[in-house]
Amino acid sequence: MGIGKTRFGAFADRDLRSLAVESVQNALSDAGIAPAAVEAFYLGNFAGPSFTGQSHLAPYVAAAAGITGVPATRYEAACASSGAAFHAAWQAVAHGIYETVVVCGVEKMTGQPTARVAEILAMAGDVAADGTFPEIFAAIARRHMELYGTTREHLAHIAVKNHANGATNPYAHLRKIITLEQALAGKVIAEPLTLYDCSLVSDGAAAVVLSASAKGVQVLGCAQTSDHVALRDKPEISHLPSIKSAAQKAYAMARVSPKDIDFAEVHDCFTIAEILAVEELGFCKKGEGGPWSQSQPIPINRSGGLKSKGHPVGATGVAQIADVTLQLRRQATGWQLEKADIGLAQNLGGSGATSVVTILGKGN
Amino acid sequence: MGIGKTRFGAFADRDLRSLAVESVQNALSDAGIAPAAVEAFYLGNFAGPSFTGQSHLAPYVAAAAGITGVPATRYEAACASSGAAFHAAWQAVAHGIYETVVVCGVEKMTGQPTARVAEILAMAGDVAADGTFPEIFAAIARRHMELYGTTREHLAHIAVKNHANGATNPYAHLRKIITLEQALAGKVIAEPLTLYDCSLVSDGAAAVVLSASAKGVQVLGCAQTSDHVALRDKPEISHLPSIKSAAQKAYAMARVSPKDIDFAEVHDCFTIAEILAVEELGFCKKGEGGPWSQSQPIPINRSGGLKSKGHPVGATGVAQIADVTLQLRRQATGWQLEKADIGLAQNLGGSGATSVVTILGKGN
Repeated sequence: MGIGKTRFGAFADRDLRSLAVESVQNALSDAGIAPAAVEAFYLGNFAGPSFTGQSHLAPYVAAAAGITGVPATRYEAACASSGAAFHAAWQAVAHGIYETVVVCGVEKMTGQPTARVAEILAMAGDVAADGTFPEIFAAIARRHMELYGTTREHLAHIAVKNHANGATNPYAHLRKIITLEQALAGKVIAEPLTLYDCSLVSDGAAAVVLSASAKGVQVLGCAQTSDHVALRDKPEISHLPSIKSAAQKAYAMARVSPKDIDFAEVHDCFTIAEILAVEELGFCKKGEGGPWSQSQPIPINRSGGLKSKGHPVGATGVAQIADVTLQLRRQATGWQLEKADIGLAQNLGGSGATSVVTILGKGN
Repeated sequence: MGIGKTRFGAFADRDLRSLAVESVQNALSDAGIAPAAVEAFYLGNFAGPSFTGQSHLAPYVAAAAGITGVPATRYEAACASSGAAFHAAWQAVAHGIYETVVVCGVEKMTGQPTARVAEILAMAGDVAADGTFPEIFAAIARRHMELYGTTREHLAHIAVKNHANGATNPYAHLRKIITLEQALAGKVIAEPLTLYDCSLVSDGAAAVVLSASAKGVQVLGCAQTSDHVALRDKPEISHLPSIKSAAQKAYAMARVSPKDIDFAEVHDCFTIAEILAVEELGFCKKGEGGPWSQSQPIPINRSGGLKSKGHPVGATGVAQIADVTLQLRRQATGWQLEKADIGLAQNLGGSGATSVVTILGKGN
């Protein structure tokens, strides 16, 4: 697997295509593959048309990277867009449809008024039934607190950890250490979530080259599942069953269990989402994600997560996989984990209507 | 293969989801498959977020049709969105990834100011480099006229034919016969294209159920290719090489040649696009599409095409495949062709940055 990333950040002078092409070229170079050898191009992008006014983005990016004459399609599954693109690409290579493909995830979000960004992001939920995403995850957090005794401190500890982690990652958007006091005193966005509970609005891209015959890091399992979009259609909003079922399928494919996972990159679009993720992934019992995260038996979001690394929505799924790969290769300079033989990436769309879970091993 | 369609038209009282669900339910019913047996859901949709303000549309539609817990992803490739979704779904079933999947194409376009519709459609081209789509295809038409002597009459004959065809199709948007004089006297939209050279702005959905073990109509070949998006990046704008290469791949898979095709549904977003399509598909020599279309040795767009059946952008690719299937099954009541053993569907994205060609046979 070849990987390529751009830095995540707010780049006034960069457009969507230049970010995507940079990541694709880095991934091709990393894999030692020429553009002409690419048999299909998978683009994960949530809302390029809304953010940038340009659609038909897959051939638009692919041709600029020297890739034409092959299937080039944009995959959209809200914040799991590039997780879904990766899942489809991996299936195709694993089943012999293609020998070599490229998956790219990209989003260009900055340069818009904050209200417009919130409006575009809200389209990942049920616009007629749900509110903004801070409101959706605030409702989930309140319910989790009510049922399981999760506290503001549990949430704040996750923010502190992810900021500390991201401060060591040279590709992260916000490399700033924060204290527990700061996190607890953050401006309230939607009770109980403060500014420090929310991930960032970022620009960025990430790409991977998948080749059937490639040595090195291997995909051991990958599964995608779906659920209702509207919060009101979910029987219990503090549970995200799509994560659980995607994880169970991925574990079964990889023939591993949660205890075999050395580290994970999870979808902390809000701090409460990280708590739900570690529960649904089976790292701890349901309801114990708060205390478990505080003791952190295995490293979660060593990259800084969406909270500190940044969350260019369509790029996030592939970026998680690229970051897990860096750890497995022992190339995470400055943020390398000691034990990194099997890693997991968990990508969430909306409030759980799409889930993708990928398990990777360091290979040979 | 199970198929399901809605009527195409301007439906003030219908939203995107209800159209999509109707087509999915019709296709499941036609196939005799329960929603619970569906292993993956592929949604082709060009611009639902822009037209309707709702994103994350694949699980949003799938769950309303009773399909949850499986991969559900939106595929976007401009006007070839559902062609691309079909291509990916067919690959997955043909290679044993799934036994049974659903592909749905949908677009809800009406209810917007005309200028906004044109602006959204223009996003399928290169927004910074190209104009509106009538302007893009007008430039292509002028060049084709200059190089090959194609005339306004050639274009008008296609409009007359497709209107006459659509008048017999109960699912068509505009069931109105027009005369050659009317077509020639149409209001100029972009010289030399008049109102009668342009396809319709429509609402509608179409769906297919693909099952590895299904009897009846079979996919003999299906290929997708890509090219540059901007007109200025194409060496000769009167050629659309992505159609040609997709067709050649599909013919090779199906082990047939253009002369074996009994009829075709082609992407006549503008009348000139039908002329280019029959040339690139190899039905006639390059440049002879105008005269060839007038003599019509094999039926093209017996459904009425995008011109008369309507063009709800994201639905078109799957609708073409459903219409070819109706002919092969001899179920095109009122518009059934005499000879219909092998049919072809050709779906175009933008001005040729995406092409999908599918060849179907009547099977056993």
